[in-house]
Amino acid sequence: MSTVHVIGAAGFAGAQLAALVDAHPHFALGQVTARADAGKRILDVAPEYRVNAVLQALDLDGVAAGDFAAVCHPHAEAAAMVSELVDRGARVVDVSADHRLRDAALYPAWYGFEHPRPDLLAEAVYGLPEVNDAAIAGARVVANPGCYPTAALLALLPVKGRITDIVIDAKSGVSGAGRAATTDVHYCTVVDSVRAYGVFAHRHTPEIAQEIGADVVFTPHLVPVDRGLLASCYARFVGDAPHPDDLRQTYVDAYAGAPFVEVVEQPPGMRAVQRTNYAQVCPMVDRGAGRLITFCVIDNLMKGAAGQAVQNLNLMAGRPEDEGLC
Amino acid sequence: MSTVHVIGAAGFAGAQLAALVDAHPHFALGQVTARADAGKRILDVAPEYRVNAVLQALDLDGVAAGDFAAVCHPHAEAAAMVSELVDRGARVVDVSADHRLRDAALYPAWYGFEHPRPDLLAEAVYGLPEVNDAAIAGARVVANPGCYPTAALLALLPVKGRITDIVIDAKSGVSGAGRAATTDVHYCTVVDSVRAYGVFAHRHTPEIAQEIGADVVFTPHLVPVDRGLLASCYARFVGDAPHPDDLRQTYVDAYAGAPFVEVVEQPPGMRAVQRTNYAQVCPMVDRGAGRLITFCVIDNLMKGAAGQAVQNLNLMAGRPEDEGLC
Amino acid sequence: MSTVHVIGAAGFAGAQLAALVDAHPHFALGQVTARADAGKRILDVAPEYRVNAVLQALDLDGVAAGDFAAVCHPHAEAAAMVSELVDRGARVVDVSADHRLRDAALYPAWYGFEHPRPDLLAEAVYGLPEVNDAAIAGARVVANPGCYPTAALLALLPVKGRITDIVIDAKSGVSGAGRAATTDVHYCTVVDSVRAYGVFAHRHTPEIAQEIGADVVFTPHLVPVDRGLLASCYARFVGDAPHPDDLRQTYVDAYAGAPFVEVVEQPPGMRAVQRTNYAQVCPMVDRGAGRLITFCVIDNLMKGAAGQAVQNLNLMAGRPEDEGLC
Amino acid sequence: MSTVHVIGAAGFAGAQLAALVDAHPHFALGQVTARADAGKRILDVAPEYRVNAVLQALDLDGVAAGDFAAVCHPHAEAAAMVSELVDRGARVVDVSADHRLRDAALYPAWYGFEHPRPDLLAEAVYGLPEVNDAAIAGARVVANPGCYPTAALLALLPVKGRITDIVIDAKSGVSGAGRAATTDVHYCTVVDSVRAYGVFAHRHTPEIAQEIGADVVFTPHLVPVDRGLLASCYARFVGDAPHPDDLRQTYVDAYAGAPFVEVVEQPPGMRAVQRTNYAQVCPMVDRGAGRLITFCVIDNLMKGAAGQAVQNLNLMAGRPEDEGLC
Repeated sequence: MSTVHVIGAAGFAGAQLAALVDAHPHFALGQVTARADAGKRILDVAPEYRVNAVLQALDLDGVAAGDFAAVCHPHAEAAAMVSELVDRGARVVDVSADHRLRDAALYPAWYGFEHPRPDLLAEAVYGLPEVNDAAIAGARVVANPGCYPTAALLALLPVKGRITDIVIDAKSGVSGAGRAATTDVHYCTVVDSVRAYGVFAHRHTPEIAQEIGADVVFTPHLVPVDRGLLASCYARFVGDAPHPDDLRQTYVDAYAGAPFVEVVEQPPGMRAVQRTNYAQVCPMVDRGAGRLITFCVIDNLMKGAAGQAVQNLNLMAGRPEDEGLC
Repeated sequence: MSTVHVIGAAGFAGAQLAALVDAHPHFALGQVTARADAGKRILDVAPEYRVNAVLQALDLDGVAAGDFAAVCHPHAEAAAMVSELVDRGARVVDVSADHRLRDAALYPAWYGFEHPRPDLLAEAVYGLPEVNDAAIAGARVVANPGCYPTAALLALLPVKGRITDIVIDAKSGVSGAGRAATTDVHYCTVVDSVRAYGVFAHRHTPEIAQEIGADVVFTPHLVPVDRGLLASCYARFVGDAPHPDDLRQTYVDAYAGAPFVEVVEQPPGMRAVQRTNYAQVCPMVDRGAGRLITFCVIDNLMKGAAGQAVQNLNLMAGRPEDEGLC
Repeated sequence: MSTVHVIGAAGFAGAQLAALVDAHPHFALGQVTARADAGKRILDVAPEYRVNAVLQALDLDGVAAGDFAAVCHPHAEAAAMVSELVDRGARVVDVSADHRLRDAALYPAWYGFEHPRPDLLAEAVYGLPEVNDAAIAGARVVANPGCYPTAALLALLPVKGRITDIVIDAKSGVSGAGRAATTDVHYCTVVDSVRAYGVFAHRHTPEIAQEIGADVVFTPHLVPVDRGLLASCYARFVGDAPHPDDLRQTYVDAYAGAPFVEVVEQPPGMRAVQRTNYAQVCPMVDRGAGRLITFCVIDNLMKGAAGQAVQNLNLMAGRPEDEGLC
Repeated sequence: MSTVHVIGAAGFAGAQLAALVDAHPHFALGQVTARADAGKRILDVAPEYRVNAVLQALDLDGVAAGDFAAVCHPHAEAAAMVSELVDRGARVVDVSADHRLRDAALYPAWYGFEHPRPDLLAEAVYGLPEVNDAAIAGARVVANPGCYPTAALLALLPVKGRITDIVIDAKSGVSGAGRAATTDVHYCTVVDSVRAYGVFAHRHTPEIAQEIGADVVFTPHLVPVDRGLLASCYARFVGDAPHPDDLRQTYVDAYAGAPFVEVVEQPPGMRAVQRTNYAQVCPMVDRGAGRLITFCVIDNLMKGAAGQAVQNLNLMAGRPEDEGLC
């Protein structure tokens, strides 16, 4: 058994992650920490996860070399925490954005802080197991991808380099906005409505662009859904557009070894993957117009956060990639 | 034209009330006040009401004798405000609970404050137009009923005195909980769930008991609905239970002059009255068991708050009871 | 491994049941049958369950003595099917209503058909494991309780015999109405609304009355929820009402050996049990008034149907009661 | 007063249209027809519109020259009906798609039927009042735009001719799918999910392309919303991209005389226009990338169908464009 500390377990992603680790056959839950909610059971702040563990203030002395940790703190705070954990010999999955952008200069511009550990940033592996599994297996720091980038990249990476004019119109459930009670997540604000936010300015834009190797237009929308994320991705082929069957085969081949990616034939709905670590991808082409549309649905708290973190932890610990996940 | 000041117009009920007054053929919007949100347009805090008026801090000197006012402040604060407004010669609809309970001794017990003006409390008229229209017409202070009492009383008053063992199981939309952002109204708390609250302890209990003249068990539930309130009311007839046709006729007669109450034959859903001032009532009887079930649906912000306030203002101003309402 | 046939697996309960059996460590999925949808994968009619098995027409010759079967057909049709299965030596959980009422005379009155096998009806065990586990273990036919009776009985049985004037106001998610596309389950009918149905006439009424040993008023409501059921149960104590602590202890003791019943201190919401086989029960008392209110939430497709069926199958097969369930 | 017949008033758009006409100060409701539901009150099939009129089978002899009619039949059936009504001297708003495409050859390809009256098709005016008000005023046949084209065109027309690579990602509430009960609109299919449909193949594609004068990629999505439609429109400027202020001014100028179009500064949500005839449009530009994103929200049954039909009828009858609308 390996110990996994969940640092910041009172939020939606952290609580889901604690529940997955708690039920995992190979991992034992170490510290599950929170700041404001220390002393409460996870069960009381997030009853649907049915985890009895009590949230506590972090005790760094209780972190041993060889332990694993997953950090679910807000950006900037996470980087400092990862630094301390790594210095104690832990191997860390950073669920925050603090190790996702390879270019340290992007942090002041997009996240408003100087990165404290450019060395760790340089060392960190982008934790999308479908493309980086080997590097993840040996990493000290894995940068767990953002929810939107996960869906957009799974939708687009198989045709990376063959497309241009990329537009990503994404729709996310409200749990992606976190547990904090604000007017934006008031039931009476959200229900029966859809709206875009972060237009031309969302922080996941440079992350997607970095991994796809091209500029993208990325527009997230908030939809009246609890958990689920759909990325509808538009692009133009730079050369001839492939036959639909060939396009599909390209995707099937790309994900042949990926236990959690399903290439489907109809535009997928969120319900097919909710509360699972699966992604469903559906590429479609209009050959005459040279146009690609590809859809990807995930559960934003699972494949978009906690589930993917466990998938990364599995790889880091030498376990089967899908252990403890469904 | 009569001037109507809306005191506390940044909340859901207040914004709805400002919108109704703004569109009313006989009323002119006076001051529309708010504390935290003063300086903003109602349009910005509550875009769905499409009211351009700017929220302002209350200027009591701008209230003239003969003006009307509707007070949408929280309890305790409202009583002080009503007192000041009446002293300036205004006639007031108190949308809060501060003038609903005839027995001043109930305020410390149920609302946690000594009533500052027992004289106004004694003078206030309970503003359920279906039973008190004449008294409302001449009142200086009208106590606008609570949302739950409105539905429960419309469901039960036609058989007042003939029933016992009254149980009211009510289901309210989330707007009834107000605009404040709390964990309880977070989309991810509310959606896809139902739960009871305030069991044996909700403040509307003594108000219902006062008007029905009997003890009641009242249990409110929060349902994943924006606007709408259903009261399912159970009781036993003390004498012989009436024939269903006679029961229905009793209700039809009771509401013969009530423009906003519809006696219907099937248990009503909220959609039939949403965004209107209508109530639908459906009485049903099991004669063998001597059992009554009667349902009432209203829109909690209209007949349950702002619409009923305008209905009361119409009566006070000598206007048709349904003017400016639908 | 024991074989479990799922007869009628295209509906919500049947598909959920097939998924549970498919993932169960001790059960192997036998035939999964459907009539209209034979030839399709369950995955295609119910993608969220992720079951690859193909629906087929029933082949009775493929049912062996000692096999288990769960029948999810509509009432009347189920009784004939159970009869055939038992005659071939299978042990059956009837998820329909056809073996729930001990008095055969109630079937023509409430369900509109003569029971074809009064002998099996007499032999059948009412499958609420929290009270009948020993009898279930040895039964040939287990009558899986209705979703509403499950919640109402778990809420009330610990005080059976001590209460009167029982009123059950229940709220069910839409999946309880089944997969058939009707106007009643159209999104635009259901969303943002609540309504009662089956007033004084719902078929679960005699089932609840039989098990609680008293007449009850039972009123179901449809709420805009996918999965989940809340029963709010009202009653009066016939003798002195107990102290709240004693009442709670009575419930805790009653469910001491029940792995799926949790006695909680706050009125439970559906989210705490959704997609699990758990029930949460919360008894509350107003001693002065001699009044009981007790709440129970379940997932209508799990503890209210498929999960409870697996719990019964576990007992029948001599397995741990909670195997393959969460 | 002018008589308006509503042909096909049992569907969502037709019932909404009957309600608007019924409450209109200048229009009198003529025949309100239905086929399957003839004999029922609109109130019974669509209670939320509160229209007492009884649905009847169409009586063509009751249509007089000079009457107005709005046809809400399915495509192909509508064209035949419009033909008959025009021949009797009525002036018609065709709410169906049957007079929207100027090129008659597109009907077999996109709608599967030969247009029966190419002469009427040639004569029909595309009923988007914001651009065609003068022609609408004198028309015998007005083709009421589709819901998606209405939103997409209002979002894009002010920059028509200046943009290329147009991608329209639209999100529609379920009422857009009509009243028919199908698996696709079952509450348990729709809730908590989003999915695309009609990819590269939706019939509104050629309609949008015709009016914008360029090829477009158009992808509709079904969202768990009752009423509301958001079009998120992406394009690239062919020349230099304008300054955001200039872009905004272009839109403000374009809609200076349009009473129902509001140019707003933040991406609009559906709630701001639900149950109204308003559209909110928000154009945004990334000058460096030469990229335009423009959003438009409408209520799909109002500005997207019935409200726009009344707006057209107002123009045809020489009434104020916004009479009877809000």
